[in-house]
Amino acid sequence: MIRIGIMGYGNLARGVEAAVRRNEDMELVAVFTRRDPAGIIIKDKKAAVLKADEVYGYKDKIDVLVLCGGSKDDLMDQTPLYAKDFNVVDSFDTHANIPQHFKNVNEAAADGGNLALISAGWDPGLFSINRIYAESVLPGGETYTFWGKGLSQGHSDAIRRIEGVLDARQYTIPNEEAMDQVRAGLNPKLATGDKHTRECFVVAEEGADLERIENEIKTMPNYFDEYETTVNFISMEELKENHGSMAHGGFVIRSAKTGWNDENNAVIEYSLNLGSNPEFTGSVLTAAARAVYRMNKEGMTGAITMADIPPAKLNPRTREEMLEKMI
Amino acid sequence: MIRIGIMGYGNLARGVEAAVRRNEDMELVAVFTRRDPAGIIIKDKKAAVLKADEVYGYKDKIDVLVLCGGSKDDLMDQTPLYAKDFNVVDSFDTHANIPQHFKNVNEAAADGGNLALISAGWDPGLFSINRIYAESVLPGGETYTFWGKGLSQGHSDAIRRIEGVLDARQYTIPNEEAMDQVRAGLNPKLATGDKHTRECFVVAEEGADLERIENEIKTMPNYFDEYETTVNFISMEELKENHGSMAHGGFVIRSAKTGWNDENNAVIEYSLNLGSNPEFTGSVLTAAARAVYRMNKEGMTGAITMADIPPAKLNPRTREEMLEKMI
Repeated sequence: MIRIGIMGYGNLARGVEAAVRRNEDMELVAVFTRRDPAGIIIKDKKAAVLKADEVYGYKDKIDVLVLCGGSKDDLMDQTPLYAKDFNVVDSFDTHANIPQHFKNVNEAAADGGNLALISAGWDPGLFSINRIYAESVLPGGETYTFWGKGLSQGHSDAIRRIEGVLDARQYTIPNEEAMDQVRAGLNPKLATGDKHTRECFVVAEEGADLERIENEIKTMPNYFDEYETTVNFISMEELKENHGSMAHGGFVIRSAKTGWNDENNAVIEYSLNLGSNPEFTGSVLTAAARAVYRMNKEGMTGAITMADIPPAKLNPRTREEMLEKMI
Repeated sequence: MIRIGIMGYGNLARGVEAAVRRNEDMELVAVFTRRDPAGIIIKDKKAAVLKADEVYGYKDKIDVLVLCGGSKDDLMDQTPLYAKDFNVVDSFDTHANIPQHFKNVNEAAADGGNLALISAGWDPGLFSINRIYAESVLPGGETYTFWGKGLSQGHSDAIRRIEGVLDARQYTIPNEEAMDQVRAGLNPKLATGDKHTRECFVVAEEGADLERIENEIKTMPNYFDEYETTVNFISMEELKENHGSMAHGGFVIRSAKTGWNDENNAVIEYSLNLGSNPEFTGSVLTAAARAVYRMNKEGMTGAITMADIPPAKLNPRTREEMLEKMI
C-alpha cells in the first residue's frame, strides 16, 4: 500500500481523498491542517486529522504528501518546505512562476533525497503533456489551448471589486467557430479574444447603476476588454441556486502538415469535460503520487513535472497486464 | 544531430523520411532495402540507398534504426535481429502477439546493450498511452476505442478473396450515436458491432452474381457478420480515382465518476484526424527515435513501449524552455 498524507483540506483535498479511495493500492493516513483539527470532519473514517506541524511525526508513516494549498498564497513556500522531508505532489498553476518554483523545489527535494512533482493536474498537467506530445510528433504545426466552459475564479473576483456588485460568477466559454477552424487544419491566427467569450452573472446592490456596472465590466483591461462579454444581472437566490457548479474542461488541439510536400493535414485533439474541476484535479494528483512513490524508490530525487513521468508509472497494472490489455 | 537509418522503403518509410526532415536535430543517413537499391529513388538526396545487409557497416554511423517492415511478415524476425546491433524503433501492431514480441526483442536488445522501442505509432502507440493515462487518473470507469473513418487493409483483403471480386476497399466508420452515449457519461455496454459500421466498395467481374457477393460479405464470420455493413459496387476506374486515400483516425474516450459518492462525471477524449495514416505513423516513429537515442545514452537497454517514455524525452526543447512555454 502507498501511504498518502494530505496537507490542507479544501475542495482539492476532498478530491484527493475521494480519489485515494478508488485506488486499491493506496491508503489515506492523515489530513494535516492549519485550522483546528477538532473542527474538521473528513469523509475517510480511518484517517487522522492533525495539525500541520504534526506532519513531521509522520516521516516514516507517509510515502507521499499531497499538497492541497493554493498557488497564490501557499505553494511557493509550502512545496520547498515539505519537499525537504517528504516526497510531495503539488498543483502549482501560476504559469509565469513555474520556472522559479521548479528551481526552489528542486534544491529542497534533492537536499532531502526526496522526489517532488510540481504543477500536476490538468492545466498545468495533462494539457501540458498533451502540448508536448503533439508538438513532438507534429513539428512545424500550431498548438491551440481552449478552456471551458467553466468558472474563472480570477475573473469572478475582478467583477466583485466593482462598486455596487454584491457577488458574481464569470464563465469562460471556448469559441466553437475558432475551434472548428483549428480542427479543419486552417491554422488560424487567433488573437486573445478570438478563442473565448466571457459570460457574467452579477448580483447588484439595490438601486445600483446597472449600465455603469456592465460598462465597467466590459471595458476592464486584460480581464474583459479584448473579449466578447455578456453580462446578466440576477438575484442572489438565483446565483446561489444555479451557479454553484464546479464544472470545467477544455481542449488542446494541434494541427500540422505531414508528407514530403505538406500534402496532408493531421489534427490531434485532447479534451476534458469535467463535472467537478477539483475532484478531477485531485484524481490526477493521486495517480501522480503513485508515480512519485515508485520513481523515488528507484532512486530519483529533485523536482519533476508530469513531462518527466513515463505513463506506465502512473498506472497500477503490471507490465505484463499492460502489454496484454492496454498497448 | 541524431543519425537515423530506415530499414525498408514503403509508405511508412516515406512517412519517416518526411518527418526526419521536419526535425532539425535529426538527419537521415541511409535507407536499407531488400530490393535492388538501384531501383529505388528516395526523396532525401543526401541519404544513401543500400542493401539491407550493408546496415552492419553502419553500426557507428547510425544512432537509431527505424524498422519500416510489416507486422505480419517482417517485424517478428527483424526487430530482434537488428536490436542486437542497433537501437531500434518498430510499429509492431498485431495486438495478440505484443507480449511475445516484447520478450524476444527485450532479450536481443539487452544482449547488445541497445534500446528497442516496439509498437510505436498511433494504435498501438499514442492510443495505448492515452488508455493508460485515462485509466490511471480515472480508476473505476470505462475506456472505449473507436477507429475511423479509415481504410482497413485486412477487411479489404478479405473481400478480395471472394469469388468474382476484382478489387475492394473497406472503410471502418465509428458509430456517432455510440460515441455520444460514451461522451454523455452513460457508460454503455457496447458489443463489437455497436461501435463501428463497415462500408465496402467492390469491383466485381463482369457478369458476377452481385447478390451472392454482397451476401458473402455481409455474413462473413468475424469480419462482417456482427456489423452493420453497406456494400457498393463500383467500376475499377471509380475505385482507382476515388478510393486511394490513406486517411484514418479514431477516438479514445474514458468516462468515469468522481467524488466521494460518485457525484460527478468526468470524460477524457483523445482523437486523431489524419490525412495520411502512414505519414502520421512515421512522424510518431521519428519522435520516438529521439527518445530512444536519449534514453540509451542514459544507459537504458532492452525493450520498451511508449508507456515507458517520459513525454519530455520525445521533444527537442530544453527543460528550461519546456517549463517556460509548454507546462
